[in-house]
Amino acid sequence: MPIERSQVERWLREDLGHHDVTNDIPGETTGRLLARESGVAAGISAARAVFEYLDVPVTASVTAGERVAADDTLLAVEGPTRDVLRGERVAANIVGHAAGIATRTRAAVERAREASDEVRVAATRKTTPGLRGVEKRAVAAGGGDTHRLDLSHMVMVKENHIANLGLEQAVERFRERASFATKIECEVERPADAPRAAAAGADAVLLDNMSPAETARAVDLLDGAALAEASGGIGLEDVADYAATGVDVVSMGTLTHSADQLDVSFQTG
Amino acid sequence: MPIERSQVERWLREDLGHHDVTNDIPGETTGRLLARESGVAAGISAARAVFEYLDVPVTASVTAGERVAADDTLLAVEGPTRDVLRGERVAANIVGHAAGIATRTRAAVERAREASDEVRVAATRKTTPGLRGVEKRAVAAGGGDTHRLDLSHMVMVKENHIANLGLEQAVERFRERASFATKIECEVERPADAPRAAAAGADAVLLDNMSPAETARAVDLLDGAALAEASGGIGLEDVADYAATGVDVVSMGTLTHSADQLDVSFQTG
Amino acid sequence: MPIERSQVERWLREDLGHHDVTNDIPGETTGRLLARESGVAAGISAARAVFEYLDVPVTASVTAGERVAADDTLLAVEGPTRDVLRGERVAANIVGHAAGIATRTRAAVERAREASDEVRVAATRKTTPGLRGVEKRAVAAGGGDTHRLDLSHMVMVKENHIANLGLEQAVERFRERASFATKIECEVERPADAPRAAAAGADAVLLDNMSPAETARAVDLLDGAALAEASGGIGLEDVADYAATGVDVVSMGTLTHSADQLDVSFQTG
Amino acid sequence: MPIERSQVERWLREDLGHHDVTNDIPGETTGRLLARESGVAAGISAARAVFEYLDVPVTASVTAGERVAADDTLLAVEGPTRDVLRGERVAANIVGHAAGIATRTRAAVERAREASDEVRVAATRKTTPGLRGVEKRAVAAGGGDTHRLDLSHMVMVKENHIANLGLEQAVERFRERASFATKIECEVERPADAPRAAAAGADAVLLDNMSPAETARAVDLLDGAALAEASGGIGLEDVADYAATGVDVVSMGTLTHSADQLDVSFQTG
Amino acid sequence: MPIERSQVERWLREDLGHHDVTNDIPGETTGRLLARESGVAAGISAARAVFEYLDVPVTASVTAGERVAADDTLLAVEGPTRDVLRGERVAANIVGHAAGIATRTRAAVERAREASDEVRVAATRKTTPGLRGVEKRAVAAGGGDTHRLDLSHMVMVKENHIANLGLEQAVERFRERASFATKIECEVERPADAPRAAAAGADAVLLDNMSPAETARAVDLLDGAALAEASGGIGLEDVADYAATGVDVVSMGTLTHSADQLDVSFQTG
Amino acid sequence: MPIERSQVERWLREDLGHHDVTNDIPGETTGRLLARESGVAAGISAARAVFEYLDVPVTASVTAGERVAADDTLLAVEGPTRDVLRGERVAANIVGHAAGIATRTRAAVERAREASDEVRVAATRKTTPGLRGVEKRAVAAGGGDTHRLDLSHMVMVKENHIANLGLEQAVERFRERASFATKIECEVERPADAPRAAAAGADAVLLDNMSPAETARAVDLLDGAALAEASGGIGLEDVADYAATGVDVVSMGTLTHSADQLDVSFQTG
Repeated sequence: MPIERSQVERWLREDLGHHDVTNDIPGETTGRLLARESGVAAGISAARAVFEYLDVPVTASVTAGERVAADDTLLAVEGPTRDVLRGERVAANIVGHAAGIATRTRAAVERAREASDEVRVAATRKTTPGLRGVEKRAVAAGGGDTHRLDLSHMVMVKENHIANLGLEQAVERFRERASFATKIECEVERPADAPRAAAAGADAVLLDNMSPAETARAVDLLDGAALAEASGGIGLEDVADYAATGVDVVSMGTLTHSADQLDVSFQTG
Repeated sequence: MPIERSQVERWLREDLGHHDVTNDIPGETTGRLLARESGVAAGISAARAVFEYLDVPVTASVTAGERVAADDTLLAVEGPTRDVLRGERVAANIVGHAAGIATRTRAAVERAREASDEVRVAATRKTTPGLRGVEKRAVAAGGGDTHRLDLSHMVMVKENHIANLGLEQAVERFRERASFATKIECEVERPADAPRAAAAGADAVLLDNMSPAETARAVDLLDGAALAEASGGIGLEDVADYAATGVDVVSMGTLTHSADQLDVSFQTG
Repeated sequence: MPIERSQVERWLREDLGHHDVTNDIPGETTGRLLARESGVAAGISAARAVFEYLDVPVTASVTAGERVAADDTLLAVEGPTRDVLRGERVAANIVGHAAGIATRTRAAVERAREASDEVRVAATRKTTPGLRGVEKRAVAAGGGDTHRLDLSHMVMVKENHIANLGLEQAVERFRERASFATKIECEVERPADAPRAAAAGADAVLLDNMSPAETARAVDLLDGAALAEASGGIGLEDVADYAATGVDVVSMGTLTHSADQLDVSFQTG
Repeated sequence: MPIERSQVERWLREDLGHHDVTNDIPGETTGRLLARESGVAAGISAARAVFEYLDVPVTASVTAGERVAADDTLLAVEGPTRDVLRGERVAANIVGHAAGIATRTRAAVERAREASDEVRVAATRKTTPGLRGVEKRAVAAGGGDTHRLDLSHMVMVKENHIANLGLEQAVERFRERASFATKIECEVERPADAPRAAAAGADAVLLDNMSPAETARAVDLLDGAALAEASGGIGLEDVADYAATGVDVVSMGTLTHSADQLDVSFQTG
Repeated sequence: MPIERSQVERWLREDLGHHDVTNDIPGETTGRLLARESGVAAGISAARAVFEYLDVPVTASVTAGERVAADDTLLAVEGPTRDVLRGERVAANIVGHAAGIATRTRAAVERAREASDEVRVAATRKTTPGLRGVEKRAVAAGGGDTHRLDLSHMVMVKENHIANLGLEQAVERFRERASFATKIECEVERPADAPRAAAAGADAVLLDNMSPAETARAVDLLDGAALAEASGGIGLEDVADYAATGVDVVSMGTLTHSADQLDVSFQTG
Repeated sequence: MPIERSQVERWLREDLGHHDVTNDIPGETTGRLLARESGVAAGISAARAVFEYLDVPVTASVTAGERVAADDTLLAVEGPTRDVLRGERVAANIVGHAAGIATRTRAAVERAREASDEVRVAATRKTTPGLRGVEKRAVAAGGGDTHRLDLSHMVMVKENHIANLGLEQAVERFRERASFATKIECEVERPADAPRAAAAGADAVLLDNMSPAETARAVDLLDGAALAEASGGIGLEDVADYAATGVDVVSMGTLTHSADQLDVSFQTG
């Protein structure tokens, strides 16, 4: 889904208030959203939508996923000064936020790829409320895997399910209930449970909070019977260690919930 | 404004999707949102609203602004398992996000207060789109100053205004146009402009991107004729240096746009 | 996601208008939503939400998926007459609509199961705009498979993709781009293409507009290398023929887009 | 009211999800929404609005109410392939739904008109929640009468009112309370009550669940003192029988709640 | 329709802003909305909904349409001080606005009734955008007639229709196009056109901008063949003159668009 | 914030209903919104947005704040007749409402200015729910001061705060809690309290329900230590008396809550 216009409206409303005297300036101006440090562009279509809501034409923009350097123009606009100024902060905030995520994702992917050509680096559902789509698309722009987009996308068989039903029964139960279109992933705490989950029909196994060594052992035991995902507190500093274990996916909540903003600024005239 | 119910609805919708098989578990359960590290609580009323939307009673919660330690319960609920599980991720995401901001704010305030008893540490308008209210209230919970809530709250006379009209004329123009209920702050690039802005009627002067030494000089020149705010790329590492200059306010965009999430988890049963 | 309260509000608004004199009756009443023919219950939680929006307590209700006979009570309420009457038409409309879908799904499943113990009968994305969730959950209540909930749920490699890129390349391209959490299904027009799609990495193959005989041949050629789905103009009259071919899934757009309403009525007092 | 943009946004959101990889195809394309069987066009302006939301220009379209044959183009568009594909399913679903209603309505009108030149065939409030406007306008496109658009449009004096107050008193009461701009219709169970309702001031009398013979007797007794409407379980098979009784209106819930979709498809390139 | 919760949410949002420090007071309080002058109550259910949104129990309230005197309590609440204070201004504003309309309506009705026992005093579509329902229900509370609730409620054949088509043809055309459930009113500029409109099938005739004498002549000419409505710039000072002409309805835009607020205040503790 | 598109959509929806036959007229037309009496223009951008929502080009319009005379064109449009007619009533209602407020504000300002060159005439928070922004901007168009835009804009220390805490303590408490960006005004009942409030740090003092003589005394006592605002039941008849006291601001609730509509009409062709 492209950015919803109603969402852009809410962003502008919360920033402008009822009567914004500050921007009451006559005439026309150009404006440019600039990177102030190097990174990966994201949130660009959301920023476009901000200016389009204000009827300010966008004259140029980079594409999500492009690498940018300090002083590169991310988006250029031209229109009534008042409306350009009305959009600048919201546009800068969403691009800074999304590009920060894309940039962090790219860094994680690069570290992981040094250890494995095939491994994917994935985000989680630990996203900022209201920005699931923007953030998941920013992860994709950074070369990451979006993972589950929502709870209905993939079934995750979790500890509490297994505690209630037993591992095999829990997987089978959800295999039955879920659509054929839906993958099933099973969370396991011990390497030995990984092949059990695969045998019960899980498409993927989440190796939860294991050390790289345990992770490697689980991968061995799985032997390709299901996709293997390493998860739980993994950061930029150890993503390569997990990538080296042979897992298919390393997932990192920090891609979305703790990425620093990419530094951007907006210049007029 | 308390959290809007329509916003909570959107948060749940984006996380749950059309048919969430994963949570299809009969029975009742208790659930607790736990801190996994020490910090400052925030986002609690938003998390309450998440469970209330799902008709899950909240049985206990901490107050925004309270210090919490690892393993402290932030919020406890009891209700149908399915509905408890539906709310857990969204509740954890919003509390992790808001408490991360409150915790970072508290850290900044503490460093600043070592240098000055009176200084305020303020956020900016660099907030995450859609979360202006949540984030500003999280800053308040951390002991920070919320600064401008929206563009209509305070007039900020900026470079482009001054370039067009001259400093004194720009301040006067907005003094006339703005309500008596609205403060006027004027951004200056050089210490010598600070007293000019105050003389022209600015309630506050933003000392933009100055070194601590320049900032101190501007404070001297102002001599209390207006509030002095230091702003521009100030981080945890130099907030005390700026606080020591005698400014009234040190503002930091990173409080809202680049705070790490507070680590939280949700446990059932 | 449970029914959104904002959706229930829109349903009531469109039915009540600005000043509904008709229902201006003092006092309290009970009300019952009755089946007037046998079928499968669905839409019940939506109907509950309608009365809850109006602050009318629901005193009893059946569960989605239950078989009901003529004169069975689907939902019982008790409250101010005016508010009971305000909810009756909307509640009846949504239950009649959803239960019609569940009932038709059950009928299709039963016919299919006579031919195959394992086959699933699935809906499509041919749902009524605005009711995706309600209708997919009604399909589940009828024992059907919900299939793709939205475009982001599963990638469908279609004719136009294959025409542009070639079958193998198209599947591979989406395999790369899609998350590991997302299944890939490939639409094929000829039985011989089914094993090609599976070999290229498709999780499922949609056998489009084939006769039962062609479908059976495609299933043979696939030999379990991917899930097989028969699709395209299949109705209640030939669902068993397709089920007998050994496919894993028979999908039918008519489950959602052309199901007759289940006949229901609302009685007060 | 034309289709609301917020409604179109909801339709697209529910179908696209957060990250629709399937449609990620570069370039431009044309697209056509085709009828695959003959019928009556409806829902066209809603489909236009879907593509307009996506900024895809609509290059041609038929008018609601036009008869179309298999392979006729209902709507043609041209734009970025990605955005054309994003709109296709929603556009097809709404046109298939609305045109199915228009087509069924036209069939009912034609049968009724063979029996009476003047009779109207009307829909009811048994519409699909969320689509009241679309469906009522589809009925109009099919040559039917829209009947009450909402509860505030016309007062319907019903059994429960009459049971409480007596027929004459109930009609009079609502005559007083309702605006002069609002018609009053009174539901009666027995032919003999029809003239009583008219005498009490009803503008129309609903002859509820009567046989054609009873209906004809009620029409005689009314003798033009009020409009006569036959209602209750009337289908395509007996609409002519009721039309032949001399009633002014035959109303049929099945026009909106149980019409089969008109078969349509969308072709690109 | 009762007040929509989403509307109440918007009212509170626009009044409270992101962080309302003013109301940050601990403890519980009672609160009362008082009339400060005599009038007719209205907007009460909207005010209830304001406090219910804030989870503040309403302990007493008058009914819309009741006469109230200075110092009468319109609504009483009890709850957390902060939330009581959050609701007070919005509740007072909506009751003051609606009760002002009801009070003005009652005054107009009383004057009209001195001249005619049967005449109705009606509002128009000249309502405040966003408050159609609230204002029409306030008119009803004041004893007035709500007139057309929206454009779809009754067809108004206007000058421009007549200029294009001729009076008789215009009425007939809309008679055909409009539902049997919809009344048709025809606007005429000269008394002599009134009977023509009635003869062509209009249910009501709007006598536009005529003097009382012309109005009386039009009523005579109509001789009961259709309802007669006097309209156009009629105020409290001449409503009785028009009522005395024998028209069925006198409509007054000022009931809704220029009524003074009823003076109310909110007291706590 | 410019008018939100979602708000314009709601205005049109409430006025048009589901199927507006009245406006079903082919062809194109021009249309003009005319003043029928002299006054001050406002609400113009809202009216533009109404027609833009309907895709009707606006060909000319006056600027908010301009004086207009009877027969002046406020807004001109040209487009499909149907869509022009759909917008006319809503556009006229919002302009009539807003311009009524601007006109009344101008009148009050002129009277006040005769007594004082510097005095401001301000609105209050007694605005029509849903129209805070439109009405405050109309006040500005009339030359008035918008005062507090929402509760978060300025802290108002009120009687109940003072009763609980004492005047000085209440002011200080909010001084601490409120942002440096937020002004603090303190409501006082007696002239002698005005300098106490200023001394405690209030930026402004609201002189509540005082006579002009008391007001003048409070101004003297304040001696410029804080802004002085006269408030409480002040009307057009005594605004000059209060202006003459030397206060900085006279605020009047009637500017927004009881302004007569400016008489406007819409003409086509």
